[in-house]
Amino acid sequence: MTSFKSFVPPQRILMGPGPSDVSQRVLDAMAKPTIGHLDPIFISMMDEIKTLLQYAFQTKNDLTFAVSAPGMAGMECCFANLVEPDDKVIIAKNGFFGERMKENVERFGGIPIVVDDVWGTKVDLNKIEDALNHHNDVKIVASVHAETSTGALTDPKSITKLAHDHGCLSIVDTVTGLAGVPLNVDEWEIDAIYSGTQKCLSASPGLSPISFSDKAKEKIMSRKSKVKSWFLDLNLIMSYWEGDGARSYHHTAPINALYGLHEALLILKEEGLENSWKRHLDNHLILRSGLEKLNIEFLVNEMDRLPQLNTIFIPDGVNDLKSRQRLINEFNLEIGAGLGVLAGKVWRIGLMGQSSNKKNIEHCLNSLAEVI
Amino acid sequence: MTSFKSFVPPQRILMGPGPSDVSQRVLDAMAKPTIGHLDPIFISMMDEIKTLLQYAFQTKNDLTFAVSAPGMAGMECCFANLVEPDDKVIIAKNGFFGERMKENVERFGGIPIVVDDVWGTKVDLNKIEDALNHHNDVKIVASVHAETSTGALTDPKSITKLAHDHGCLSIVDTVTGLAGVPLNVDEWEIDAIYSGTQKCLSASPGLSPISFSDKAKEKIMSRKSKVKSWFLDLNLIMSYWEGDGARSYHHTAPINALYGLHEALLILKEEGLENSWKRHLDNHLILRSGLEKLNIEFLVNEMDRLPQLNTIFIPDGVNDLKSRQRLINEFNLEIGAGLGVLAGKVWRIGLMGQSSNKKNIEHCLNSLAEVI
Repeated sequence: MTSFKSFVPPQRILMGPGPSDVSQRVLDAMAKPTIGHLDPIFISMMDEIKTLLQYAFQTKNDLTFAVSAPGMAGMECCFANLVEPDDKVIIAKNGFFGERMKENVERFGGIPIVVDDVWGTKVDLNKIEDALNHHNDVKIVASVHAETSTGALTDPKSITKLAHDHGCLSIVDTVTGLAGVPLNVDEWEIDAIYSGTQKCLSASPGLSPISFSDKAKEKIMSRKSKVKSWFLDLNLIMSYWEGDGARSYHHTAPINALYGLHEALLILKEEGLENSWKRHLDNHLILRSGLEKLNIEFLVNEMDRLPQLNTIFIPDGVNDLKSRQRLINEFNLEIGAGLGVLAGKVWRIGLMGQSSNKKNIEHCLNSLAEVI
Repeated sequence: MTSFKSFVPPQRILMGPGPSDVSQRVLDAMAKPTIGHLDPIFISMMDEIKTLLQYAFQTKNDLTFAVSAPGMAGMECCFANLVEPDDKVIIAKNGFFGERMKENVERFGGIPIVVDDVWGTKVDLNKIEDALNHHNDVKIVASVHAETSTGALTDPKSITKLAHDHGCLSIVDTVTGLAGVPLNVDEWEIDAIYSGTQKCLSASPGLSPISFSDKAKEKIMSRKSKVKSWFLDLNLIMSYWEGDGARSYHHTAPINALYGLHEALLILKEEGLENSWKRHLDNHLILRSGLEKLNIEFLVNEMDRLPQLNTIFIPDGVNDLKSRQRLINEFNLEIGAGLGVLAGKVWRIGLMGQSSNKKNIEHCLNSLAEVI
């Protein structure tokens, strides 16, 4: 231990499924002096984060904030608060994160009804409708906007409409979606949605942007049983992120991480949300064209691909682990391995946030050409 | 929103109950380039953090790491993993955080047995022994080493011995204790302990150092019911923080916050743990002497005071809120308000980590003299 030194990380090019490249502006913001979580100046910054998150989500939801923990805690925050014991929850599962939703529902005493789709395809709306017709008294339909494990884009607007037609709430995972593909929480009438900071927002990991509709908020405030988490109980958190004047202490917010998120959201605002969506799509097309020249094939049908997460088959005869090790050791390039059933079969190339730029694409294509 | 600018926080002097002053070294560390949470270089740094935390806790516990969320999530991690439905848990409550422990036990289906002591006093060991003799089949005794709401120091060594004599596990909250007062997890045989980064470690808030004995680990691995949290389930987290070679993905760690914790722990190692304890005590004595000259009285008996958290009565006729507002606006000095039953009656002056220095003490005494 006497030999331990200050940590000096290498300068990687982050083109995996997250974290994405964090800009110097955001890194510098995180290094600003720490102030107190109840300091009036800090509370003002929290208010700005809320406004900027409302912009990113395209919502006027009052209950919009950043959970003080990574995206998976955002998922847990939605399910812990909205699922009561014995609530039936339909989960549209087309990848790894649908499975996690099921785990969440079970742990909070709900009854998961899993509707399976093949990994790499989008959610089949007919199956969701069938499940809603077949099961009585379903309370919630949950789906993944942008499946980080496969790169498939799903249509949360239509799923939410089906949910509402059957008197259900809609929970949407947009961890990888936010700022990378079109999303309009209010227009699509989504009731609860969560994201992460380390994907298309390009802040450091550790926070989970989240938003709840008034209908979701009502359900939370009228729960019969207490939320099975004190840390994530929105009835308590609301008094810290909401209200005029003095805020109640709930927990100590991750001050410097929030500085970074504030800066990352400013960068998004400066670019403009629509421009960000367009940049992600344009750069995807450039990458796609380069990959095609290398005879590399995509897992997901062209129509359903996430521009910010490109899942490709590992070419025949190419060693998965060794190639990724060469990419990181020789080219400082991180790409993602396959998850779950896709482990060893695919790679995931992220073009998220600051990582979505032409220089990165060129470096990635050149490096891939060397190792395959 | 168009007028939003990059956030530039003021340079405060943080002498409340946390966060404490964060050194430039730690701030600079957080601004280092973000790399992936599965990058081998990052995994090596996690291993160093584990070793450094073992040093700070004085333990060889293999299950020692930082929860990816603030101290209150560390509390929840202990209770969520160690409490099974209908488990009886004795809670030694002598302040605000004992109440939170009770909430935790209830939410995870346990039966809390609260043993009350007056706020500002330490835990009465006789009452704990009585409770253990009176109740059959108690599983856990929980106590707060350093009550952040009152500044009282309690003796977790003796409480743990009582717990073990009655076949119970011992959970200890040392959010404000770690690195500020003597603590020896292995010698005292504590089974589960959690802390925060923003107190005597002087890293930014957002992580919770935590450690579990082998006996606690066995209980977690042999649970009959699943942990009521996926995010905090140690059965899952172990595979990310432990093991040789490849780590399993559980969630995306807060990369840059961990850089900061690594640096803060290095600073602690360089100073030496015993020297850190001594500095906190020495500076407390200097502050005490200055406060006595101002005729300010302490809430806690001299014998039971935490050197790093000085709770003082607000002098008669002095306006609580206005005085604290003057301190922050005119002197850039943050001190803490009273919590719970002590609101409006006391102030809490922190001398934690980097904030525990003579310059701060002088500034604090001079500023207090101006406003009271």
